[in-house]
Amino acid sequence: MTHTPQGYLAIVGLGPGHRDLMAPRAIQVIQEADLVIGYRVYLEQIQDLLTDKEVHVSELTHEVERATLAVQSARAGRRTCIVSSGDAGIYGMAGLVLDIFSHLAEEMASSSPDSVSEPYVEVVPGISALNAAAALLGAPLTHDFAAISLSDLLTPWTMIACRLSAVASADFVVVLYNPTSRKRHWQLGEARRLLLEYRAETTPVGLVRNAYREGQKVQLTTLEHLLEHDVDMFTTVVIGNSCTRVHQERMITPRGYEQHRSL
Amino acid sequence: MTHTPQGYLAIVGLGPGHRDLMAPRAIQVIQEADLVIGYRVYLEQIQDLLTDKEVHVSELTHEVERATLAVQSARAGRRTCIVSSGDAGIYGMAGLVLDIFSHLAEEMASSSPDSVSEPYVEVVPGISALNAAAALLGAPLTHDFAAISLSDLLTPWTMIACRLSAVASADFVVVLYNPTSRKRHWQLGEARRLLLEYRAETTPVGLVRNAYREGQKVQLTTLEHLLEHDVDMFTTVVIGNSCTRVHQERMITPRGYEQHRSL
Repeated sequence: MTHTPQGYLAIVGLGPGHRDLMAPRAIQVIQEADLVIGYRVYLEQIQDLLTDKEVHVSELTHEVERATLAVQSARAGRRTCIVSSGDAGIYGMAGLVLDIFSHLAEEMASSSPDSVSEPYVEVVPGISALNAAAALLGAPLTHDFAAISLSDLLTPWTMIACRLSAVASADFVVVLYNPTSRKRHWQLGEARRLLLEYRAETTPVGLVRNAYREGQKVQLTTLEHLLEHDVDMFTTVVIGNSCTRVHQERMITPRGYEQHRSL
Repeated sequence: MTHTPQGYLAIVGLGPGHRDLMAPRAIQVIQEADLVIGYRVYLEQIQDLLTDKEVHVSELTHEVERATLAVQSARAGRRTCIVSSGDAGIYGMAGLVLDIFSHLAEEMASSSPDSVSEPYVEVVPGISALNAAAALLGAPLTHDFAAISLSDLLTPWTMIACRLSAVASADFVVVLYNPTSRKRHWQLGEARRLLLEYRAETTPVGLVRNAYREGQKVQLTTLEHLLEHDVDMFTTVVIGNSCTRVHQERMITPRGYEQHRSL
């Protein structure tokens, strides 16, 4: 186990879960770490990289605990790596870890102003659910789009509803993260209702469950029929704009509004 | 040179340009191709993968020509790979290629209804400018965000302006693609003006030029001072939401509105 004088913290997403879609830099920061921290299911995906390494396994809901441990370990001078799924920077652990990092740094600075140098922090970019779902659906995101999480645990539903209406009215392609969960059932139906205030029932919708993982399921439907399909917490929902069309089971969003201009 | 009976077409983005951030699947589809098609600068980045391979090099503006050639080659039964930068599915070549693919398929189907089977098309997901810029800036995209291209070549400015206002009013983090070019100068200033109708002058803004490439430049500023910085066509602009803050040169967007709720 190496203790670097300054400490190092890598925040890395494992992509959709398929090793073929994990970039070399992500593998490298895991291999070079003294301590790797993550949710059990993610660590199982990279078990071969963790031999002879100290590992802290935690459960799904313990994000604050994981992030705090990662920051403390790096501050103690260790090479530390915290893993999440997808891209750690898109609805991933990067925000929470940097948030805790900055609060701890401020605390330390006020209690002992001329103390230690801060650890070096690196966020490694990865392939998020939106990149993966788009590839499997064809080309839905080749024009302006918005990503919205339907989870109202930390964000009031009024704000989420306001966002859905805003992007529906401005003809964005919409990517929904966390469309449903065991405890949240009505949000997707409400999102559909708000989108239909501006968008046609025939608007193409793509559903990607477990992208590039076991049990992958890619489905095409429309806003009209969206609620007839199984959508769970492992599903990413992509709703087309007014120009998105479907050809041979693929969503295609044109690069602009060329046709509109020539009308 | 192998001719598969059915033909195969891979659409792949090279990520930001650093090989460490290219996933194995992207490398593989290039290595397995008979013909690789791309803009000169992108092909130079992967020269070592192109030995003994037929290569079609084209210039920046010839996207339609490149995409058509790729589709025709795959339809002729060849393993074909068309490369773009970033993620081919996010403002990348995937849309144009699938668009041309579908039009050609429809033409063929109407002229000779019981003809050839269609080639297999694979879009390989990659790391887009938004994934790369977010990682270099810290964690700006850990809550809802919108991606908007400021290029009004194919989209009327009135639509772009409508989108900017919509996402500004609904407190999205905003990622701007194509903020300026040699011929487009006023769009970024106008975008800033529209954003300031809803967002504070102190809102953090991140500028990432040539992410993970030679000449990389990461800058933090505010909406107030945005126009005092050099922003060119190689720059991605990330504008925070009302909760985004800066600590030690990193943008951090909280996961939600926790504090708001407890007020």
